[in-house]
Amino acid sequence: MLVVGEKINASRKKIAQAIEEKDAYFIQKEARAQVEAGADHIDVNAAPFMEKEGEYLQWLVRIVQEAVNKPLCIDTPNPNAAVAALKLHKGKAMINSITGEKESISSFLPLLKEVGCSVVALCQDDMGIPLTLEDKVRVASRVIEDLVGEGIDLNNIYIDPLVQPISTDSESVAIALDTIEEIMSRYPGVHTICGVSNVSFGLPLRRQINQTFIVLAMQRGLDAAIVDPFDRQLMANILTTRTLLGNDEYCLNYIDAYRRGKI
Amino acid sequence: MLVVGEKINASRKKIAQAIEEKDAYFIQKEARAQVEAGADHIDVNAAPFMEKEGEYLQWLVRIVQEAVNKPLCIDTPNPNAAVAALKLHKGKAMINSITGEKESISSFLPLLKEVGCSVVALCQDDMGIPLTLEDKVRVASRVIEDLVGEGIDLNNIYIDPLVQPISTDSESVAIALDTIEEIMSRYPGVHTICGVSNVSFGLPLRRQINQTFIVLAMQRGLDAAIVDPFDRQLMANILTTRTLLGNDEYCLNYIDAYRRGKI
Repeated sequence: MLVVGEKINASRKKIAQAIEEKDAYFIQKEARAQVEAGADHIDVNAAPFMEKEGEYLQWLVRIVQEAVNKPLCIDTPNPNAAVAALKLHKGKAMINSITGEKESISSFLPLLKEVGCSVVALCQDDMGIPLTLEDKVRVASRVIEDLVGEGIDLNNIYIDPLVQPISTDSESVAIALDTIEEIMSRYPGVHTICGVSNVSFGLPLRRQINQTFIVLAMQRGLDAAIVDPFDRQLMANILTTRTLLGNDEYCLNYIDAYRRGKI
Repeated sequence: MLVVGEKINASRKKIAQAIEEKDAYFIQKEARAQVEAGADHIDVNAAPFMEKEGEYLQWLVRIVQEAVNKPLCIDTPNPNAAVAALKLHKGKAMINSITGEKESISSFLPLLKEVGCSVVALCQDDMGIPLTLEDKVRVASRVIEDLVGEGIDLNNIYIDPLVQPISTDSESVAIALDTIEEIMSRYPGVHTICGVSNVSFGLPLRRQINQTFIVLAMQRGLDAAIVDPFDRQLMANILTTRTLLGNDEYCLNYIDAYRRGKI
């Protein structure tokens, strides 16, 4: 399970302020704390700054990788901003995200082919966000096949089923979970990823929803998630689910996490 | 999801003492608190008292049903004790438990046929407790078919796959989960039940393990569990899983539980 830490996102007021003030200390502290909490990748997002996004994203890549030895998840819908950020990135980056929309694929393809980074592909096309299992699988399959047809390695593709909030439709999560299982079994080697917090939008005790969702999704094959790594219960649930599903021989990781005070 | 509250069990020292002293107040308080916490059935167990078990079990049935308007789960391996307790029970009781051992089935059959109670059937036969998926499904299937062949309604049978502690074998939980799914799909109408706390035996932070296991098991079809209803996080996870799996229209149960301070 790949844990992408979501905290360095300019939609958060404190982060936006730190970016504008070029407060490297604050950003680096946030990056280190996420790694300490268990993040494998660090998401960096400066999208709200519009025309300054590219410049800020480059700054973020540089100073975050100064602080932590982890790959970044370069979070932008803008291929130009992505290209510039990728040039500074050390190691294998993840681009977050493309969609199945024609323009999105064609504008990102050159850099995906050149750099060999991994990419989050949202389950969305020119018709919008599909809501049924059948449509979600169809859109995801087309994106996967388009990318693979262009020479992108299946292992570099992370499909996000775009789970809709359970508050808007009581079937939405079941559909996303079925989509995850279907995609993972139909394309062995591909990955699935979710922005977990969307599930709980509009409900009280959102963390309780997110913490339960991640367990359900991992059982269906989800192998990456964009989460708040400071949510200790969520991180404990990821670890425990891994153990219970048989991926932790002698429970060594579980016991080690307990001894280190992580759970 | 049927929640059986496990607290009135004479293997707990305080409960054993209250039973010996015929401290109805203490037992009734424990019963009410479990119902308040969300238990649908109340387990009553006096097995450690051996020759006095029958007498004590009758007393428990009488005083617990005085206090709460819920069916009991009469927890004894002894058919004579079960018969006497059933005579006093109001409503439809659950017997916990029989096994697939020849003697167990034959000694409990007359009362199961006569009373029409439901019954927990452990996945165990004269060869012991099966450990592989294939053996678990084979033993469970035989118990189900034997009982149904004798006229017991499928709806009254609760198969317990006897999940082994994850600390003893990292595959044990995956096997139990597969067993649950296989039994539920092979015999539509049958139920599955787990004594959840066994999963975490031998590990630190046992509740964390139990709380995660219940989410995984519910997704595979588990529809009853013997649990500690005072574990608030576990009860919250049961409720949230129900909501996320699409069984809570408009999230009304979730929101109601939040408003009542249950989660």
